[in-house]
Amino acid sequence: MASKPATEPATAEGVTILGTGAMGSALAGELLGAGHPVTVWNRTAERAVPLATRGAAQAETPGQAVIAHPLVVMCLLRAGSVHDTLTPVAAELRGRTLLNVTTTTPNESRELARWAADHDVTYLDGAILAVPEMIGSPAAQIFYSGSREAYDRFRDVLDVWSNGTYDGDDAGAASLIDLALLSGMYQMFAGFFHGAAMAGFADLSATEFAARAAPFLAAMTEGFADFAGVIDGGDYAVPGQQSLEFSDLSHIVRASEEQGVDPAPVATVQELISRQIAAGHGSEGFPRVYESLRRPAAQA
Amino acid sequence: MASKPATEPATAEGVTILGTGAMGSALAGELLGAGHPVTVWNRTAERAVPLATRGAAQAETPGQAVIAHPLVVMCLLRAGSVHDTLTPVAAELRGRTLLNVTTTTPNESRELARWAADHDVTYLDGAILAVPEMIGSPAAQIFYSGSREAYDRFRDVLDVWSNGTYDGDDAGAASLIDLALLSGMYQMFAGFFHGAAMAGFADLSATEFAARAAPFLAAMTEGFADFAGVIDGGDYAVPGQQSLEFSDLSHIVRASEEQGVDPAPVATVQELISRQIAAGHGSEGFPRVYESLRRPAAQA
Ligand SMILES: NC(=O)c1ccc[n+]([C@@H]2O[C@H](COP(=O)([O-])OP(=O)(O)OC[C@H]3O[C@@H](n4cnc5c(N)ncnc54)[C@H](OP(=O)(O)O)[C@@H]3O)[C@@H](O)[C@H]2O)c1
Ligand SMILES: NC(=O)c1ccc[n+]([C@@H]2O[C@H](COP(=O)([O-])OP(=O)(O)OC[C@H]3O[C@@H](n4cnc5c(N)ncnc54)[C@H](OP(=O)(O)O)[C@@H]3O)[C@@H](O)[C@H]2O)c1
Repeated sequence: MASKPATEPATAEGVTILGTGAMGSALAGELLGAGHPVTVWNRTAERAVPLATRGAAQAETPGQAVIAHPLVVMCLLRAGSVHDTLTPVAAELRGRTLLNVTTTTPNESRELARWAADHDVTYLDGAILAVPEMIGSPAAQIFYSGSREAYDRFRDVLDVWSNGTYDGDDAGAASLIDLALLSGMYQMFAGFFHGAAMAGFADLSATEFAARAAPFLAAMTEGFADFAGVIDGGDYAVPGQQSLEFSDLSHIVRASEEQGVDPAPVATVQELISRQIAAGHGSEGFPRVYESLRRPAAQA
Repeated sequence: MASKPATEPATAEGVTILGTGAMGSALAGELLGAGHPVTVWNRTAERAVPLATRGAAQAETPGQAVIAHPLVVMCLLRAGSVHDTLTPVAAELRGRTLLNVTTTTPNESRELARWAADHDVTYLDGAILAVPEMIGSPAAQIFYSGSREAYDRFRDVLDVWSNGTYDGDDAGAASLIDLALLSGMYQMFAGFFHGAAMAGFADLSATEFAARAAPFLAAMTEGFADFAGVIDGGDYAVPGQQSLEFSDLSHIVRASEEQGVDPAPVATVQELISRQIAAGHGSEGFPRVYESLRRPAAQA
């Protein structure tokens, strides 16, 4: 039998991760588990030690970390910390790929992409719709936008974390879609709290309200596709819809006020409906509310 | 063999229904299907003809309809039309049970209950969380409150329509719970429209956005029970929660503004969060938003 070499050449792509907070550590940990060489750096060095113990190389400076691999992942707190960390190592980054998964607004992502282009760095933006514990499971969603080439080249790395989607070459797109989904989630949560506060005055505990609200709202998400079909179709007058006039929420606003529950979140929705009715669209379908959002009152 | 009598005595409870619009017709239709004697009246008589064809007795006046059966169901448009219709027939209603399923605010239901008590009428309020097509299917939910005796006595009738729940003797409770759930639903819908408007600027069609948002939001409803546990427990500082500070939504508000999407619905949520942070609770859990709603700014 031929003798086996002491060390096999590593075939898995090596990855540098700057920032080993909760999310950065999860991303690095999954890569280590999948056999990728990983180099980490964290401002507070102690926080990277558990990864070093598991086999990651721990760099002392961002510059040392950056030169270790062709793919450099940023997982810091905000756009500001990304700029602060990268500006001094622009020369070392040249020719590499920067994947930024730090939460940034679309415009911040676009600005980072411009900075990268100015320094001959390939830029891919990532937006993570998951908590750290979900990384590596099918439940994790990560959206990517920016360089398609980078997305394709490092697909093996990205696939370790989630079923990613590529959302186009606008570097801001991934963030925009992520924030759009989170906006929907937080508004749904506010709706739950608002409903729970109202139902509390009918002697229903929040837990009892949750038991009714969770299956009801989950079932009502099935309506999104129909609303979307009307929006994409561009004709809000297609028959068979609930009209804007029928969707008047003033009795809900009133009931909320009567009970001493701040009606603000539902009054805001009513305002979006009223704006369309005032513009003469009351007999059209409820999805027309969408038009209230794309034409801000401030610009009307 | 003993000869069978030509007509068997009707054992199913007879029911009067005032108002045969879309919902009243569905309620009456299901009762006819289940073999209940039904008497109907509608302001515009033609609208009751299809039910008469199916075997309902059609009364010419509300007074004639009311005296036909011990249970009188009101399914009109608003509280005002219920008052207008009932005031002239108060004497005929004496000793009977009035079930009002017209959409009313909790205070309007309580007022109807007082009116009924003043006229020796037993009052039960019903709030229908269903569209007419769902009546008679397990998906229909109807909440009842007011007279427990009436709820128990006419249970066979109520069971024809849905799996009802009895929510206590406060006549306003059923309406309050119904409107609380609808408030949650409309806020979720607004969140969907807001997200779709944002994602539209990332070249995602509303249909593509719906395909991501529907399963995501449906999954996130699973968090309601945890939020509710914290609210009912009364300690917003229990460990293991996402903090209010971490829940800062200003980057979503900013991203929405940057794209020309009216940030109002998510800014309203942010305002509820900010109010708790300003009051010194930033390190406590996200469910504390509930407290912003129970203590309206106007009263602060
Ligand atoms: N956790 C989640 O559920 C989640 C979900 C989706 C997206 N994200 C995003 O992922 C990113 C990281 O979140 P996380 O949960 O890992 O947060 P975290 O645990 O608080 O970690 C923050 C990281 O940023 C570093 N950092 C902060 N300011 C810095 C600066 N000025 N210079 C250099 N490094 C700095 C921290 O270093 P030190 O250790 O030295 O402070 C740490 O490595 C954020 O943008 C977050 O929005 C998180
Ligand atoms: N449809 C739903 O999805 C749904 C769901 C839950 C709850 N509800 C509630 O059920 C109730 C009825 O709704 P619907 O869908 O059946 O509405 P609808 O089809 O518009 O019917 C309205 C009914 O109210 C009657 N009415 C209106 N104003 C009146 C007045 N001043 N005097 C006497 N009768 C009057 C109408 O009589 P005419 O025929 O003479 O106009 C008709 O019978 C409403 O309170 C609604 O909120 C409906």
